[in-house]
Amino acid sequence: MKTNVFFKNKGPIKLEKIITVCSPISFPKNTSLNIFDIKDLISASDKDITFLNSSKYKELSINTKATACITTQKLQKFLPNDCKAIIVENLMLNLAKVTKLFYPDSQLDELDKTLIPSDKIKDKYSNVSFGQNVLIGENVVIGINSLVESNTIIEHNVTIGENCVIGSFVTLKNTIVEDNVCIQSGCKIGQMGFGFIPDEKKNYRIPHIGSVILRQGVELGVNCTIDRGSLSNTIIDENSFLDNQVHVAHNVKIGKNCMIAGQVGIAGSSTLGNNVVIGGQAGISGHLKIGNNVQIGGGSGVIKDVPDNSKIMGYPSINFRDFIRKMEL
Amino acid sequence: MKTNVFFKNKGPIKLEKIITVCSPISFPKNTSLNIFDIKDLISASDKDITFLNSSKYKELSINTKATACITTQKLQKFLPNDCKAIIVENLMLNLAKVTKLFYPDSQLDELDKTLIPSDKIKDKYSNVSFGQNVLIGENVVIGINSLVESNTIIEHNVTIGENCVIGSFVTLKNTIVEDNVCIQSGCKIGQMGFGFIPDEKKNYRIPHIGSVILRQGVELGVNCTIDRGSLSNTIIDENSFLDNQVHVAHNVKIGKNCMIAGQVGIAGSSTLGNNVVIGGQAGISGHLKIGNNVQIGGGSGVIKDVPDNSKIMGYPSINFRDFIRKMEL
Amino acid sequence: MKTNVFFKNKGPIKLEKIITVCSPISFPKNTSLNIFDIKDLISASDKDITFLNSSKYKELSINTKATACITTQKLQKFLPNDCKAIIVENLMLNLAKVTKLFYPDSQLDELDKTLIPSDKIKDKYSNVSFGQNVLIGENVVIGINSLVESNTIIEHNVTIGENCVIGSFVTLKNTIVEDNVCIQSGCKIGQMGFGFIPDEKKNYRIPHIGSVILRQGVELGVNCTIDRGSLSNTIIDENSFLDNQVHVAHNVKIGKNCMIAGQVGIAGSSTLGNNVVIGGQAGISGHLKIGNNVQIGGGSGVIKDVPDNSKIMGYPSINFRDFIRKMEL
Repeated sequence: MKTNVFFKNKGPIKLEKIITVCSPISFPKNTSLNIFDIKDLISASDKDITFLNSSKYKELSINTKATACITTQKLQKFLPNDCKAIIVENLMLNLAKVTKLFYPDSQLDELDKTLIPSDKIKDKYSNVSFGQNVLIGENVVIGINSLVESNTIIEHNVTIGENCVIGSFVTLKNTIVEDNVCIQSGCKIGQMGFGFIPDEKKNYRIPHIGSVILRQGVELGVNCTIDRGSLSNTIIDENSFLDNQVHVAHNVKIGKNCMIAGQVGIAGSSTLGNNVVIGGQAGISGHLKIGNNVQIGGGSGVIKDVPDNSKIMGYPSINFRDFIRKMEL
Repeated sequence: MKTNVFFKNKGPIKLEKIITVCSPISFPKNTSLNIFDIKDLISASDKDITFLNSSKYKELSINTKATACITTQKLQKFLPNDCKAIIVENLMLNLAKVTKLFYPDSQLDELDKTLIPSDKIKDKYSNVSFGQNVLIGENVVIGINSLVESNTIIEHNVTIGENCVIGSFVTLKNTIVEDNVCIQSGCKIGQMGFGFIPDEKKNYRIPHIGSVILRQGVELGVNCTIDRGSLSNTIIDENSFLDNQVHVAHNVKIGKNCMIAGQVGIAGSSTLGNNVVIGGQAGISGHLKIGNNVQIGGGSGVIKDVPDNSKIMGYPSINFRDFIRKMEL
Repeated sequence: MKTNVFFKNKGPIKLEKIITVCSPISFPKNTSLNIFDIKDLISASDKDITFLNSSKYKELSINTKATACITTQKLQKFLPNDCKAIIVENLMLNLAKVTKLFYPDSQLDELDKTLIPSDKIKDKYSNVSFGQNVLIGENVVIGINSLVESNTIIEHNVTIGENCVIGSFVTLKNTIVEDNVCIQSGCKIGQMGFGFIPDEKKNYRIPHIGSVILRQGVELGVNCTIDRGSLSNTIIDENSFLDNQVHVAHNVKIGKNCMIAGQVGIAGSSTLGNNVVIGGQAGISGHLKIGNNVQIGGGSGVIKDVPDNSKIMGYPSINFRDFIRKMEL
C-alpha cells in the first residue's frame, strides 16, 4: 500500500513509544529512532515497522526492508539480522494496538463531517448526473458520464471513474472505483470489517486501514456488502459481476471475469483467481485460495483451498462428479 | 406483455436494420417490412419479432403469430412456414442485441430525472400519507389509504394500490403494486436482474424490459430484493408473504398464499405454485417448476422440479422421509 | 414486560368485551371485571390476562397471578383454580385478536408522524454528533458522545445510550440501545416480525408489542435485520458482535460475548447462551435452546437444542468430530 489517502498517519512515532503500547517479552535496545508507518512485509520501507504472524511468510520476511517487526519467539528466526524484533505473545492484539497508534481513526467508522449536498457543488462535477439528496465528501473525484442516484453517500477522498452507475441508498467510503463500474442500490462499501480480539469485558476492534478497490467494469447487485481491508485492501478485479446480497469480507481478493450469484458469502482474506463462477448461496471460508477457472455449485460450503480448473459442489464441497455419485446413493 | 409502460419502444424498426445488429448465419430476403416490438412466442402479434431458444417450446412456436423469429438452425423446423427465420449461433447474444435495439434504456438502470419530493406534490395524492423526503417520479399512481415512509423512492410510472404500506429506504421501479400490499423497509424492487453474456473483455448485459408485479395482499420483509424480468415479468401472487432478506431473481413467478422464510433465494425464471412453504435460507435453482402445496425445509438446496404436494428437505433436497432416514444413519 | 413505552395500551377493557373478539368453546360467567393488559404467565399481575399454549409451561402457569387466561381444553388443568379460563380451539388466532384489542397499532408498522430533521432539534441533543438528513421522533433519548450518520431514522421513544455509533440508512423503531453500541449502515431494527396465521383469503398478522434490546457493547454489521418481539422482546446481550447481513427474528435472545459471522439467520423465539460462536451462513431453526460456549460451524443447519460446550457442524448439524468422520467416508 502506498500513502494512505483515507486514514491519517500519525507517524513518525518513536520506536520506544511503540513499545510502550505493546506487551513485549523482549524488545530491541536502541529505540529512539523514528518509525514512519506500519506496513506488510513487502510494502514496508526501511523506515517502517512490519509484522510476521506465520511461517508461511518466511520467504517474504527474510527479505523485508522493515526496520522493525512485531513477531513471536518462534518466528523471530525468519527475520533479517538487522531487523529489530519486538517479541510478543498475543501477536494480533499487539499488532492492533500499534496500528491504532499510527491510525487512531481506523478502529471505528467516524462521522464524515465534510459531506455536502451535491446540489451545492454541482459545478465541481459538471459532467456527472446526480439524483436528489446525494451527499459528497471532501476531495471526492467522479469521472465524466457517471451518474449517482438519489440519497447516496460518497465520503471524503473516494474516487469514482468514468461511465459509472451508482444506485440509490449506497454508502461508499474508503473506496476506489475505476471506470465502467455499476453499483446497484443499497450496497454498503468500505466500512470496517468484522475483526476483533475477543475479550469478556469488551472486545478489542482491529483497526481497518485498508480500502476497497473495484476495478474496471465490475458490477455489484443490490444490497451487497463489501468491507474494507484491515492491513491490505479488499479488491474485485476487472469485469467481475456480483449478484444481489453478496457479502465480501475484509481483505478478500476476487480475480477477473468472475460470476458470483446471489447471497454468496466470502469470508475474510480469501483469494479467488480469474474466471471463477460461484452459484447462489455458496460460502467460502476465510484465508482460502481458490484457483483460476474454478466452478463452485450453488449452496456449496468451501473449507479448503481449490486448485485451478476444478469443478466442485457440496457441503463441504467436493469434486463435482463425486457429489453427483454421492447423491445417487 | 401489453404495451410496456416502463420502457420506451423505439419501434417500428425495419427488419433489415434488425438483421444488421445480428450476426446471422442466414436471414430472410424481403426485409423492408416494419417490426413493431419484440415479444415472446405467445404475446407476439403479426407485426412483432419473437425468439425460440428450446425445443421445449415447439408447441408454442408452431402457433406463433410473429412475423419473424430469431432462432437456431436446429430449431427452425418448429416455426410456421410464413414466419421469417433469422438463424444465429449465439441466440442469447443476438436476442439481447435486438432487444436493446427496441429498448435502448433497458440494459442499465437509468437515473430517474422526474423525481420530485412528495412535499411538493402532496395535493396530487390527497388520501396518501407520506413520511419525509419521499421522492416520487412522473405518472406515479398511489391508491387511497396507502402510506409511504420516509426516504423512499418511487420511480416514474410505478402504480401502488389502496391500503398499502411502503416502508422507509425502499426503491420501487418498473413495478406494479396491487391493493393491501406491505413492503417493509430497505426493499429494492424492480432493478435489472443478474443476466449477461460473459465476455473476457466486457460482459454484455441482457436488457431487462419486464416489470415486477406484486399482487393483492403480498408482504415483503425488510431488505428483500426483487429483480424485474428480462423479457417476461417477475410476479408474486396474492397473499404470499416473504420474510426478511429474501432474494427473488428475474422472471420468477411465485403463486398464491406462499410463505417464504428469511434469507431464502430463488434463482432466475423458476416458478412456484400456490401454497408453497419454504423454510429459512433454502435456495431454489433457476428454471425450475415447484408445484402446488410443496413444503421445502429450511436450508434446502432444490435443484430439480418438484411435483405438487411434495415435502422435501436437504442439500440437494430429497423426500422429507428419506432425509430423516439418512440423518439417522 | 413493564409498561409498554412503544405501543399504546387501550386497557382497561372489560372481560366480556375480550370474550366477544374470541371464538370460545367456553368462558367464565362473571365477566364485567376490568382487564388492564395482556402479558405472559410470569409478568401478568392479578389485573391482567395471560395465555397458556403448551404443557411445557405448566410450572409457570400453575403460579400465574393473572386473573384470566386464554388456553385450550387440554391445558386448562394447569391453571390455578381462581384463574378464569377462556377455552378456545385456535389459540394463536384468539391470542392475536385479544392482543390487537389492547394494542391496535401493533399489527403493522405505522407511519411515525413525529419525525423531525435533527437540524431543527440539535439543541436538545447537545453532545451528540449528527450527519445530514437524520430524522428523530418524539421522546427519543440519545446519550452523550454518540454519533448518528446521515439519512438515518430514529423513531419515537427509542433510547440510545452513550458512546454509540449509528451508521447511515439505519431504521430504529421500538428499540432500546444501551451504551457503547455500534450499529453499522443499513441495519433495520425493531420492525414487526414474520408472524401470521395463514388464511387463504387474507393472512392474519400477529401483533408485535415487544421491543428490541441491544445491551452494552453490542455491534451489528451492515444490513443486519433484527425484528422486534411479538409478546416478549428480542434481546442481544452485552458485548456480542454480529457481522454483516445477519437476520435475527422476533423473540430471539442472544447471550453475552457471542460472535456471529456474516449471513447467519436465527429463526423466531430461539435462545442462545453466552460465548456462542457461529460461522458464516449458519441457520438456527425456531424455538431452540442453544447452550453456553457452543461453537457452530459455518453453513450449519441447527434443528435441535444444543447442550452447553458443544461443538457442532453440518446440515443438519451434528457433533463436530462426527462431521469430520463423515466427510472422510
